[in-house]
Amino acid sequence: MYSVGNVGWIEADAPACGPLDALVRPTIVAPCTSDTHMSHGGSGPKENLILGHEAVGVVTQVGEQVTNFKPGDYVVVPCCTPDWLAPGVQNTVSFSHDLGLMQSFKFLGCKHGVFAELFHVNQADANMVKLPNGVSPEAALMTVDMMSTGFHGVELANIGFGDTVAVIGIGPVGLMAVAGAALRGAGRIIAVGTRPNCVKIAREYGATDIVSYKDGDIAAQIIALTGGGVDKTIIAGGNAETFAQAIAMTREMGTIANVNFFDVTETLAFPAYLWGLGMANKDIRGGFCPGGAKRIEKLLALIAAGRIDTTKLITHSFRGFDKIADAFALMDSKAQDLIKPIVYCDDLA
Amino acid sequence: MYSVGNVGWIEADAPACGPLDALVRPTIVAPCTSDTHMSHGGSGPKENLILGHEAVGVVTQVGEQVTNFKPGDYVVVPCCTPDWLAPGVQNTVSFSHDLGLMQSFKFLGCKHGVFAELFHVNQADANMVKLPNGVSPEAALMTVDMMSTGFHGVELANIGFGDTVAVIGIGPVGLMAVAGAALRGAGRIIAVGTRPNCVKIAREYGATDIVSYKDGDIAAQIIALTGGGVDKTIIAGGNAETFAQAIAMTREMGTIANVNFFDVTETLAFPAYLWGLGMANKDIRGGFCPGGAKRIEKLLALIAAGRIDTTKLITHSFRGFDKIADAFALMDSKAQDLIKPIVYCDDLA
Amino acid sequence: MYSVGNVGWIEADAPACGPLDALVRPTIVAPCTSDTHMSHGGSGPKENLILGHEAVGVVTQVGEQVTNFKPGDYVVVPCCTPDWLAPGVQNTVSFSHDLGLMQSFKFLGCKHGVFAELFHVNQADANMVKLPNGVSPEAALMTVDMMSTGFHGVELANIGFGDTVAVIGIGPVGLMAVAGAALRGAGRIIAVGTRPNCVKIAREYGATDIVSYKDGDIAAQIIALTGGGVDKTIIAGGNAETFAQAIAMTREMGTIANVNFFDVTETLAFPAYLWGLGMANKDIRGGFCPGGAKRIEKLLALIAAGRIDTTKLITHSFRGFDKIADAFALMDSKAQDLIKPIVYCDDLA
Amino acid sequence: MYSVGNVGWIEADAPACGPLDALVRPTIVAPCTSDTHMSHGGSGPKENLILGHEAVGVVTQVGEQVTNFKPGDYVVVPCCTPDWLAPGVQNTVSFSHDLGLMQSFKFLGCKHGVFAELFHVNQADANMVKLPNGVSPEAALMTVDMMSTGFHGVELANIGFGDTVAVIGIGPVGLMAVAGAALRGAGRIIAVGTRPNCVKIAREYGATDIVSYKDGDIAAQIIALTGGGVDKTIIAGGNAETFAQAIAMTREMGTIANVNFFDVTETLAFPAYLWGLGMANKDIRGGFCPGGAKRIEKLLALIAAGRIDTTKLITHSFRGFDKIADAFALMDSKAQDLIKPIVYCDDLA
Repeated sequence: MYSVGNVGWIEADAPACGPLDALVRPTIVAPCTSDTHMSHGGSGPKENLILGHEAVGVVTQVGEQVTNFKPGDYVVVPCCTPDWLAPGVQNTVSFSHDLGLMQSFKFLGCKHGVFAELFHVNQADANMVKLPNGVSPEAALMTVDMMSTGFHGVELANIGFGDTVAVIGIGPVGLMAVAGAALRGAGRIIAVGTRPNCVKIAREYGATDIVSYKDGDIAAQIIALTGGGVDKTIIAGGNAETFAQAIAMTREMGTIANVNFFDVTETLAFPAYLWGLGMANKDIRGGFCPGGAKRIEKLLALIAAGRIDTTKLITHSFRGFDKIADAFALMDSKAQDLIKPIVYCDDLA
Repeated sequence: MYSVGNVGWIEADAPACGPLDALVRPTIVAPCTSDTHMSHGGSGPKENLILGHEAVGVVTQVGEQVTNFKPGDYVVVPCCTPDWLAPGVQNTVSFSHDLGLMQSFKFLGCKHGVFAELFHVNQADANMVKLPNGVSPEAALMTVDMMSTGFHGVELANIGFGDTVAVIGIGPVGLMAVAGAALRGAGRIIAVGTRPNCVKIAREYGATDIVSYKDGDIAAQIIALTGGGVDKTIIAGGNAETFAQAIAMTREMGTIANVNFFDVTETLAFPAYLWGLGMANKDIRGGFCPGGAKRIEKLLALIAAGRIDTTKLITHSFRGFDKIADAFALMDSKAQDLIKPIVYCDDLA
Repeated sequence: MYSVGNVGWIEADAPACGPLDALVRPTIVAPCTSDTHMSHGGSGPKENLILGHEAVGVVTQVGEQVTNFKPGDYVVVPCCTPDWLAPGVQNTVSFSHDLGLMQSFKFLGCKHGVFAELFHVNQADANMVKLPNGVSPEAALMTVDMMSTGFHGVELANIGFGDTVAVIGIGPVGLMAVAGAALRGAGRIIAVGTRPNCVKIAREYGATDIVSYKDGDIAAQIIALTGGGVDKTIIAGGNAETFAQAIAMTREMGTIANVNFFDVTETLAFPAYLWGLGMANKDIRGGFCPGGAKRIEKLLALIAAGRIDTTKLITHSFRGFDKIADAFALMDSKAQDLIKPIVYCDDLA
Repeated sequence: MYSVGNVGWIEADAPACGPLDALVRPTIVAPCTSDTHMSHGGSGPKENLILGHEAVGVVTQVGEQVTNFKPGDYVVVPCCTPDWLAPGVQNTVSFSHDLGLMQSFKFLGCKHGVFAELFHVNQADANMVKLPNGVSPEAALMTVDMMSTGFHGVELANIGFGDTVAVIGIGPVGLMAVAGAALRGAGRIIAVGTRPNCVKIAREYGATDIVSYKDGDIAAQIIALTGGGVDKTIIAGGNAETFAQAIAMTREMGTIANVNFFDVTETLAFPAYLWGLGMANKDIRGGFCPGGAKRIEKLLALIAAGRIDTTKLITHSFRGFDKIADAFALMDSKAQDLIKPIVYCDDLA
């Protein structure tokens, strides 16, 4: 990314490796809509940054105080890598805001990302995980953002056994939210989306009902389908209009959980009566996926135990580091049959 | 209330007392802004209803299945009296939505209220408390809505020890929220309001700082005062604009807790960037005060233990049942030195 | 049950149906170890009581204030049926202790149980559920105690995504705890038990590892298997010794969740160092399954959504009301291949 | 401390200051019963260790990567200083178990403590706080363990507004638990203790009732006083017998919260019926005080806001570094009028 609207290859110096840090050569990477969103200015103006925040790879160098890793280790790298010495991690809410809002998201905007021959991981002992036995690199790659983000939606939604849950948007994050809701004990799961391959996988991941934008207002459809609304709603796609619909379709005492990036130019708005004039005990929550090694370790444990197959998300794969541009363009064009593309960078070895 | 905009006395039949219910003769009542709000149509069109939902009084009759009370008992009656056999109470979120949104609030809109010679309490064993030793009737009267509502704001705000808390609005509910925040372990408490007598009591209840609407945008003032915003914000007054300000003044990982009735015509709106584009882990909550006897028992226990003096709210008192109209008019006119008026109905005995 | 140690048939008057109550003729019932436990004096001395608390059936009579049910309705009856007008339900912890410890468990000890031609359900609107479409009566019968209790263990254990969980005991409640842990997002699940048919079903419900008492101390085995202990432990069987083992096998910051009835003669004990001298932040919890209609509705929703097949628990079925004695004897004898017996009482119709 | 049972002065090398660390010269220190407990072998065998973990002081050196502090800063140092790069802090339960059980408690047992001319603070940016304006050094010194530990008891106890709370033990930690319970919204607070000066301060901090061991079984007394037991119990003193009493005096659905160090030789035991045979929904919790800078910042905020005066704990003060031995001996002898001694080490400057 050169500047908003311009994307291409840049030459950059190899990153320096601090005493607590590591350098990693990517073996498989995946572009994400956050990357394309940023390249179009969704997070404000940025310049001359390497994009990319989803990678697995091989350690090439570690700082002198790193104790858990050595060059040659195959590692899974969370997209959110907090500075664990910063004040924002000393709470029990989230580790995503170390020095301030979303500043644990180092790869996007703070420094060069993972679409590079080598990338930098801060505080490696706390922010990397060795690829465990029984988990494929491709499955692991899907945990670092897609699964962590989708499952954060599920966590924010505070699902109880048997709750009826709506998931709005069934791109890769929404599909993970569907799978996560099923794994969290939801009863009926209503997935909102239209693309046939996504609908198919949504059902495989546990959706019991599908609602399409094409059949009319989604809130009205879901209220009719459930006789009054759902217990919990997860927003994993859409825009400001979606936000109001989510509030409308959720019952009193329910929760609306957002893991969708809204655009900086949007205003989120809803009529007061949909929120019971402020009296409905409907919680509205939204957050960035939790960071650090432990988080990813827990998600990998779900894969290792056979609870979920994350590779269903992968619809396209490319071979060769220079194919990242093709994958990125594919992502940006939102091809009809695309869920998630990956790029093997074996040629870097 | 005859209809929206028209208030006066009506003749009504004495209420019937079901087998689980009780009839109570009020000894002290208090009008509330919810009453005046409703009389102006804030909750939509209503007709020929007796208003009033804050009362202490004497039991005159109990149903045959009532076991804890008998005629002559002096009782405190919560403003929120759920139907405990309804499905909406079988959860761990709130008891305020028994058969649906706010339907536990029987006195306002569902049936005649407490500004009457006799009023009806559903499921008396579960919805009334005997006035305990060591608590004055006036102090107890302030628990049934003002304290319960203000303290619900505190509960929703999820305050941790030492948190910096803003309370927007220092009418009687806001003042209770200030006192409640101090009793919940808040550090710095910034109260937003202007009226001198309210400011004085806010300080007595634990506010460490006062911010006035008159000195400019309250969000900007509070962000400057705290170097970035507060941990938790309680909305206890204001309008749709206040809602956006509350989100602006609250840090990432914080909570905005609303106990203010917004108007049915309002739209609540805020720019997405104030909510970190959906990523800030700022919870937005709002609810109606919990119902039932236990709730009020717990609040009365705080008074009995000397933790709070709720009578500081009472600025005006009237003597005589027919003075309710005067108190109501005073409330409606928002007299400068008014916090909360009460009316002694001893003449009913 | 005549008295401790003596079980047989008694003649009793048909129960009276209060205005809020219902009478139900059982169609399928199941004996439970709580019944046999009680018949042996585990809950202290009791006399001339009809046992049984797991039933589905048909409504024969409703009280005049019952609005949701009518004679002929096929209903699922929770084993725990709180008095919703009692103070103990006005909290957000549990609905199982309405008037005091476990007093929401009306069928066992407070009044005659369900092993009768007709049984009584207090506050029917709040304590019964119509059998929903898509759920078999047999599957529904397993929710009223087995699933509700096993899943309460899961709820108490406070499982996070990917946690390693041990379930001690894989009788019917333990098997439900295994299934519930998998449905709550556990990673590795270590089930402790030995009987081959239970082991087989534990694996089908999601257990990844099996540990047997026969291979040595279960705590030592599990600590070795996990490299230090599990995150959460659910006790669904065993005795006082099991309690100490559960604490030993759980890591710091973990939770031990008990849903096992200990014997009234037992002392629960553990060396202080296993609890970090009191400093380990290991929570020890234990409770009775939540009561009421909503609870069972939520569990039935899980079955209807295809998340769980509870009928795997049913290993033996009898036909005829008088076969309850055989089923009870079978339960009491703990036959090797038994998990859960049911008795069809069609002959009562 | 030379070995179990032998205490005296040792010569040690000045600690090395790593790149993330700081060295601090103590200005005021306080001995703690954990120190004396350890010197008597309560935590197992230890040798040639400098004791002490409560200090405020002046920074003398900082590592090259420390950004928030410089030599000369007056700092408050938490007794619990986690390694923030260790896995045990990446959870939302506690930061006290970084590399394992209580291993965030660096000063006691892992390395030399603060009773030295210079002491070492690991990861200074994350584990120290500048003394804020409006808080005296003496008041601040009481936060680093006494207040943090007592308030952790309050946090573990999960107190709701108006709850009745028992605090067992009114040494300095118990007194902080009393103050914390009042600041968390407890109604009635029953403090268990006998020493007149402690009783006096307990009342000043918010205790409404006092129960003495000398008047008989404390559980029986408290059950009588409350008509059945308290909602929440905090154990801040005593031994294994106290543990069983705490369970006895707490109602169903209550919580027992321990912040007392039990002895390694003790067994914690209670009759199953006191725990409702495992069905009472009484949570038993216990943990070590949370670590890190933010924790202490929040506690200092409470002092700065005037919510609590921690200096009431200080009954004895000594002047001169070499008086630490006297203070330690005083602590060990449990003098009748002692609550907490402090030692000014100004002579080190």
